[in-house]
Amino acid sequence: MFSVGVSDHVMIAHSFADPTFGPAQRLHGATYSIEIEVRASSLNVHHVVMDIGAMRTLLRRVCEGLDYSNLDEHPAFPNRTSTTERVAEHVAGELARLFGELPTDARATKGATLRVTMRESPVAFASFERPL
Amino acid sequence: MFSVGVSDHVMIAHSFADPTFGPAQRLHGATYSIEIEVRASSLNVHHVVMDIGAMRTLLRRVCEGLDYSNLDEHPAFPNRTSTTERVAEHVAGELARLFGELPTDARATKGATLRVTMRESPVAFASFERPL
Amino acid sequence: MFSVGVSDHVMIAHSFADPTFGPAQRLHGATYSIEIEVRASSLNVHHVVMDIGAMRTLLRRVCEGLDYSNLDEHPAFPNRTSTTERVAEHVAGELARLFGELPTDARATKGATLRVTMRESPVAFASFERPL
Amino acid sequence: MFSVGVSDHVMIAHSFADPTFGPAQRLHGATYSIEIEVRASSLNVHHVVMDIGAMRTLLRRVCEGLDYSNLDEHPAFPNRTSTTERVAEHVAGELARLFGELPTDARATKGATLRVTMRESPVAFASFERPL
Amino acid sequence: MFSVGVSDHVMIAHSFADPTFGPAQRLHGATYSIEIEVRASSLNVHHVVMDIGAMRTLLRRVCEGLDYSNLDEHPAFPNRTSTTERVAEHVAGELARLFGELPTDARATKGATLRVTMRESPVAFASFERPL
Amino acid sequence: MFSVGVSDHVMIAHSFADPTFGPAQRLHGATYSIEIEVRASSLNVHHVVMDIGAMRTLLRRVCEGLDYSNLDEHPAFPNRTSTTERVAEHVAGELARLFGELPTDARATKGATLRVTMRESPVAFASFERPL
Repeated sequence: MFSVGVSDHVMIAHSFADPTFGPAQRLHGATYSIEIEVRASSLNVHHVVMDIGAMRTLLRRVCEGLDYSNLDEHPAFPNRTSTTERVAEHVAGELARLFGELPTDARATKGATLRVTMRESPVAFASFERPL
Repeated sequence: MFSVGVSDHVMIAHSFADPTFGPAQRLHGATYSIEIEVRASSLNVHHVVMDIGAMRTLLRRVCEGLDYSNLDEHPAFPNRTSTTERVAEHVAGELARLFGELPTDARATKGATLRVTMRESPVAFASFERPL
Repeated sequence: MFSVGVSDHVMIAHSFADPTFGPAQRLHGATYSIEIEVRASSLNVHHVVMDIGAMRTLLRRVCEGLDYSNLDEHPAFPNRTSTTERVAEHVAGELARLFGELPTDARATKGATLRVTMRESPVAFASFERPL
Repeated sequence: MFSVGVSDHVMIAHSFADPTFGPAQRLHGATYSIEIEVRASSLNVHHVVMDIGAMRTLLRRVCEGLDYSNLDEHPAFPNRTSTTERVAEHVAGELARLFGELPTDARATKGATLRVTMRESPVAFASFERPL
Repeated sequence: MFSVGVSDHVMIAHSFADPTFGPAQRLHGATYSIEIEVRASSLNVHHVVMDIGAMRTLLRRVCEGLDYSNLDEHPAFPNRTSTTERVAEHVAGELARLFGELPTDARATKGATLRVTMRESPVAFASFERPL
Repeated sequence: MFSVGVSDHVMIAHSFADPTFGPAQRLHGATYSIEIEVRASSLNVHHVVMDIGAMRTLLRRVCEGLDYSNLDEHPAFPNRTSTTERVAEHVAGELARLFGELPTDARATKGATLRVTMRESPVAFASFERPL
């Protein structure tokens, strides 16, 4: 099994409606360091899982939809539910869509999976993994 | 598949009885950076795998049973067998017990697993993974 | 010259009024990893620059004045001027005040300086340094 | 499931023949930080997956076959195909061979797997995983 | 004293003519993680040492003069003398020139200094510091 | 001003006699990640501050005097006073002595200084700086 990964980051504001989150119900924010990993059982014709340059470009495009914004107003997270898990799931969905638009020879081989890991602080992270 | 993780650290002394460990048979010590990760196929009612705050609190409680101690005298590691793998297994067992005492809505969904990774130096780590 | 340092982090929302900051004029946020360092030419009676435990406790107290908040509403940063440099200066001022209230034997020796470094992303940081 | 890992690094030159890699067709180079991980369902008689010291020694030996070299001239990567994925696959193969020569009591238990992860920059990595 | 820093990286090939460098006389390469820091005694009119965005853009421009190249052929390092110290000195010189072309209100205040730190591996770095 | 640095680590046991250290009066331990930095105003004849290979070799030699030991029994730290600051001072003294035995062309130029930084956990470090 092969994998390849790249990283980027976004800086967002948000708050949570659910009282379970205590002080995080207040408007605050986070720098999310985002690492994405694509896993595949074989390499494509270019001897890679996917091209790192293409991955970085598409990850940046997804990041631009979140960067310098208030997630409380983002349609993907209704009712102030932008937990790190939900943001990772959203990023994975957007990436899977963009990866699907790549030319065939730039894609990962059949059966590949995508994992998005988001570090919100030196002591906490969440991730989401799905098929491509 | 979702996951969430938090980290903490402990500072311990220990030594190994087994001659295979060479100089590590002498009394020495380690700072263990501990990262725990819970994986689950779905999120709970709070849109998270588990609450990060609860995870950090319970990990700290488990750390307190090890921090500033000599593992050669700890009942979990008889005959000076506190290899990093065994310490990770011990931490995972303690955490699984504490997680099981949480209110239902604070737990990870059915089928979740727990991984404990312990970094003992910039160049070495060990981990243990088990069901919750 | 000796130094000692500890770290912590806060998660805040903010925005900038100054058009020079482009997209950062929008409400967004940051996780600030904060590392503080105290430098002194000699050690105190306990063979340390300052006690690490006391430093961590007081840094946490200062962090609590910022954590999970919107800096646009914080009196220390009027007119939405909470640049990382200004936040570092603020944290240093608060810490210097708290360090000054410590018992004499817990303080750094005469002439010590304090540096506060704040990492806002994997690729950017700012710091402020002042006498204690 | 247990795992244990160690790390090292190599500094190499290379270039790619495939036009898909753009500027990386030019002769350039990389520092590869290499982390290897062995996973096994049980520990061996020494209460470890494998001895960290043995792992570091053998990883260094494999590194010596790459360090301070131009991979364009290395027989394992014909036609300038030393993508990070292919280098990880090569390192894993070399390590599996050396691990197989260890005395029985120094090996991982039956069914163990090996993962080799190579970080080529702060924002990119690739890995390869195989049975031992 | 204030400071601000940003980082980037380049991937280069090179070799050394001087026999003192042993195996590094062979053609090899490196990923240089580059962190630049500007220090100034006061902030400019925008409440920053310098704008992080401008710093990242100009650092990238300097990196483009090195990235994916063989430093043995670069005019700044005659006779294969591209030690990490010399590369840091070169990057600092290029940056100082570009910073000097910025509009006055985008520059650091009078007396500012620039430090360029280049990490070539997890265990080694070099830096160069100069006035701006 | 130029600088060059290398790193290594040691794993030690120790305890403190001074009641100010609370739970750290108990026998415990630490992994110290050690980073040393030599600063000089000019480069030597080899276009470096000092050779990284020589620095790593000598740092390892100093580490061997501490690694896998109990600092409570080390003559450099009488009465259980092995604070991180004192260990850094000791390492710096040993290194300065060894650096002084190097051939002239392998040394840093006149006026160089040495800084030893020891990270004892993800959240704490101490350092000592002295002339060479």
